[in-house]
Amino acid sequence: MANDKKVEQITDMEVDFAQWYTDVCKKAELIDYSSIKGMFIYRPYGYAIWENIQQELDRRFKETGHENVYLPMLIPESLLQKEKDHVEGFAPECAWVTMGGSEELEERYCIRPTSETLFCEHYKNIIHSHRDLPMLYNQWCSVLRWEKTSRPFLRHREFLWQEGHTMHATEDEAREETQRMLNIYADFLENFLAMPVVKGRKTDKEKFNGAEETYTVECMMHDKKALQSGTSHYFGDGFARAFDITFTGSDNQLHHPHQTSWGVSTRMIGGIIMTHGDNNGLVLPPKVAPIQVIVVPVAQHKPGVLEKAAEVLDTLKGAGIRARMDDSDNSMGWKCAQWEMKGVPVRLELGPRDIENGQCVCVRRDNGEKVTVALAELAVAVSELLEQVHQGLFEKAKRNLDEHIYPAFSLDEAKRLQEEKGGFIKTMWCGALQCELDMKEKAGMTSRCIPFAQEKLGDVCACCGKPADKMIYWGVAY
Amino acid sequence: MANDKKVEQITDMEVDFAQWYTDVCKKAELIDYSSIKGMFIYRPYGYAIWENIQQELDRRFKETGHENVYLPMLIPESLLQKEKDHVEGFAPECAWVTMGGSEELEERYCIRPTSETLFCEHYKNIIHSHRDLPMLYNQWCSVLRWEKTSRPFLRHREFLWQEGHTMHATEDEAREETQRMLNIYADFLENFLAMPVVKGRKTDKEKFNGAEETYTVECMMHDKKALQSGTSHYFGDGFARAFDITFTGSDNQLHHPHQTSWGVSTRMIGGIIMTHGDNNGLVLPPKVAPIQVIVVPVAQHKPGVLEKAAEVLDTLKGAGIRARMDDSDNSMGWKCAQWEMKGVPVRLELGPRDIENGQCVCVRRDNGEKVTVALAELAVAVSELLEQVHQGLFEKAKRNLDEHIYPAFSLDEAKRLQEEKGGFIKTMWCGALQCELDMKEKAGMTSRCIPFAQEKLGDVCACCGKPADKMIYWGVAY
Repeated sequence: MANDKKVEQITDMEVDFAQWYTDVCKKAELIDYSSIKGMFIYRPYGYAIWENIQQELDRRFKETGHENVYLPMLIPESLLQKEKDHVEGFAPECAWVTMGGSEELEERYCIRPTSETLFCEHYKNIIHSHRDLPMLYNQWCSVLRWEKTSRPFLRHREFLWQEGHTMHATEDEAREETQRMLNIYADFLENFLAMPVVKGRKTDKEKFNGAEETYTVECMMHDKKALQSGTSHYFGDGFARAFDITFTGSDNQLHHPHQTSWGVSTRMIGGIIMTHGDNNGLVLPPKVAPIQVIVVPVAQHKPGVLEKAAEVLDTLKGAGIRARMDDSDNSMGWKCAQWEMKGVPVRLELGPRDIENGQCVCVRRDNGEKVTVALAELAVAVSELLEQVHQGLFEKAKRNLDEHIYPAFSLDEAKRLQEEKGGFIKTMWCGALQCELDMKEKAGMTSRCIPFAQEKLGDVCACCGKPADKMIYWGVAY
Repeated sequence: MANDKKVEQITDMEVDFAQWYTDVCKKAELIDYSSIKGMFIYRPYGYAIWENIQQELDRRFKETGHENVYLPMLIPESLLQKEKDHVEGFAPECAWVTMGGSEELEERYCIRPTSETLFCEHYKNIIHSHRDLPMLYNQWCSVLRWEKTSRPFLRHREFLWQEGHTMHATEDEAREETQRMLNIYADFLENFLAMPVVKGRKTDKEKFNGAEETYTVECMMHDKKALQSGTSHYFGDGFARAFDITFTGSDNQLHHPHQTSWGVSTRMIGGIIMTHGDNNGLVLPPKVAPIQVIVVPVAQHKPGVLEKAAEVLDTLKGAGIRARMDDSDNSMGWKCAQWEMKGVPVRLELGPRDIENGQCVCVRRDNGEKVTVALAELAVAVSELLEQVHQGLFEKAKRNLDEHIYPAFSLDEAKRLQEEKGGFIKTMWCGALQCELDMKEKAGMTSRCIPFAQEKLGDVCACCGKPADKMIYWGVAY
C-alpha cells in the first residue's frame, strides 16, 4: 500500500535564490535551527557530507606530514591580547566565559574564534632546537564568532572547521607551506567537490588579522556571487616575537621561527549547495555524497524484485560504492522526488521487466539522463557513470565561472557590469586602500583576490587612474 | 655520529603511582598543560590514540545503525533547567558565557557538560510519528565541566568524548539499546584495548543525573583502583515528558518516546596507561597503538643496512601494519629507551649480520621477549606477534582483576581488605543509601556496580545486617 505523502515544494532559485538556499538546507535535512540565534544543528545527512570532507582532507594533510592535535577551547583574555592586530580583529566577536560553577572568574576566557594564540603558547613550550622544526600541526574542532547575522553553513556563530598551524626554521619553508596547503585546498575543491577555483592573494584590507599575507581560493556560486572557500596565511615571525618563541639554529644562534596557518570550514557545504543545486533540490558531487546510488525497486511487491534489488545493492557495495535501497512503502513519485531533493548522484531503477532483460535503468541527478545498464557490467558501468557526473558538474560550474568574469576600466563600468551581469569584475588596481573603499561604497563590491594568473588589462587603476601593475578581481561575496 | 642525549627517568610506579602516571603522560608526549588550570593539550601521540579509538567505535556505532550529528556547544540556562534532577547535578560545574562581543547577554549560556537537553529540544522538532523512530544519534565533541581538581586524561575541565542519544517507541526497545551499547563498550575495551571489564548496574546514588538506570563497565588499574570506563543510561520517558516530546503511534494515539544515552571519553587513554604501563613507560595494546612496530636499523652506517630496513618497513606497511623506521642519529640505547617510553608494541632490530642470515630480531614491549624472525615470513610473523602481545596484555590485566576481588561480610572486614589488599571488595547489600554513605565514610569506598554476574555470598547486608539479595562491588575509584 503506497504511502501518499507529498514532497514539499521549494522556492524557485530564479525567484528568490536566498529562500531557495534555505529551503534546500531544510528540506534536504542538512540542518536545523537551535534555540540560540545563529547556532545550527548539523543533521545526519549534513554531517555525513562533512565527514567525507574531513576524511579526504585529513588523508591529504597526513600524507604531507601533518599531525592532529587538540588544544583547549578557551583562551584567557591576556593570551588573546599578546598580538595586537589579532586581538583587534577578533575581540569584538568573542563570546566570553565569566563564571565557572557559581564563582566569578578572576580573568575572563573567550571561546576560541581561532587558535593562533593557543598554538603559540604551546609552541613556546615545545620548540627549542632546529631539530624540532618544522612543527606541522592541524586541529579539527568548532570555533565561535559572535556574528550579528547568520545563514546555514555560510555564517554560523559556531561552526566546524580545521585549522592548520605550522612553524618553520626559515621564511622560505614557511612560504612554501602556505602555498602547499592552498594547492591542496584548490585541488580538493576542484577534484573532490567539483568546484572550480580562482587562486590568489588577498589585499592588506582583506587579509587575516595578524597575518603578513593571506592566500585564498575563491569560488563562484550559481547566483554569480563569490564564496571565499579556503585561506592560507603566512605570518612571518610576528607571533613568534610577540610570544617569545625561539629555537637554537644549526649555527648555534637563537632565531624566531616562521609561521603559517590555514583553514577550511563547513561553509564549503554551503558552496556545494550553491554551486551545483537546482530547482529540484540538492545536487551532490559523487565523491562527497553520503549516498552515491539509491536503488529504487519498481513494482517491488512482485515476486523476485526485492531479492534482485538486494543483489544489485550488494554488488554496488562490494565495488566500494556507497549505495542504499529505498524499499519503503512510499510511492514511486515520492521516492524519486525525495532522493532528488537529497541530491543523490544516481538513481537506479529496477523492475520485473528490467530483471527479465538482465538490465537496470540509471538516472543521473545532474542532467536527468537515463542510461540502461546491463546487470552483468553493473559495478564498472556505475563507477564510470559517477565519474561522468563529477565531470559534468565540474564543467558546468567551470563554464559558469569562466563566462562571468568581466574586464572593466572604470569604477562606473565595474558597477554597471556587476549590476547587469554579476560575477567577478577584473580591473587593474594601484594597490591603494582608498580605491577598495571606493569600490565598496560606490559599487558594493569587495576585492576577492589578486589572482596568481595575472593579465595586463592596462596601465592604470580603474578606480583612481593612477599607475597600476596588478590585476584584481572584485565581487559581491557571501 | 651518535647523538648522546639521555632519556629522562620516570618515577617508579611502586614508589609513587600518581607521579609515575604523570611522568608517563608527559614523557611519552601524550599531553601538555595549558595556561588554564585543568585544561590540557592533547599532543599528536595522545591524539593519535584517540583517533584510533574513535575510528573503531565509530565503525561499531554505524554498524548498529547510528548516525552522527553535531549540536551547538552552548545551552541556554532555561533549557538546562527543564529536567530538575539533571540541572541539579550539572549546574554547579558549568562554565557560563555571559557576554557576546561587547554586549551582556539577556540569558546566560553554559558550555555543554553533556547534551541531553539539546538533543531533546531537537527531537521535539523532528519526532512526530512512530515511523520516525527509533532515532539513533551519536555526537563526537568536547564537553566542559568546571571541576576543582584535575589529572591528565582522568579529570579535565574540557575533555573529548562521544555521546549517543537515542529515542525509541517502547520501553523494551530503549532498554535493549542501553544493553547493546554497554556490550559494545565492553567488547571494545576487552578486545581492542585489552582491558578486562566488570559489567553491572550503578546504584541510585551513583547513577547519571536524570537517568532511571545507569549501566557501567568498570576496570581495575594496576594500583588496584577502579576506573569507570563507559556508561549507558536508560531514561524512561522522563526527559520526553519534561520537553513535551510526543509521537503518534500505530494505534493513532499520542505517546512519549523512551530515551537512552551512552558515552565514553578520553579517560579511556588514562585507563590504557594505568592498566598496561610499567617502569619503562607506556605499554600500548597493538590495536590502538599509533605505531605498532618501530624498525631500528643496527649499525645503520654500514652499506646496505638502511636500504634493507626500508624494504622491511615497506613489507610491514604493505601488510597493513602501522610501522615506522627510526634512522635518526640518536644512539641505539636512546632509541630503545625512547620507543619503550612511547609503548610501541614491537621493536624490530635489523643489522648487517641479520641481513646476512635473512632474519631480524623482534622485541616485545610487554615482556621483553626477543624473537628471531625470518625476513621471508616477516608480515605473517609480525602480525602473529602483535596478536600475542594483545593476548599477553589482556591475560595479565585479567589476572590483576581476578586476583583482586575479595568477599567481605562486614564493613570492618571490607575496610581492612581495601587497606591491606586494595581492589574490588564484594559484599551483599540491602539496597539502602545509608549503607553506601557508611561505606564511603568509614571505609573510603564507593559502590562500583551491582555486577550482572551475581553470586550469593550470604543473606544479609555487610553494612547493616538487614536482609540483602544483591551482591555489590566496592572500590576506590579514579
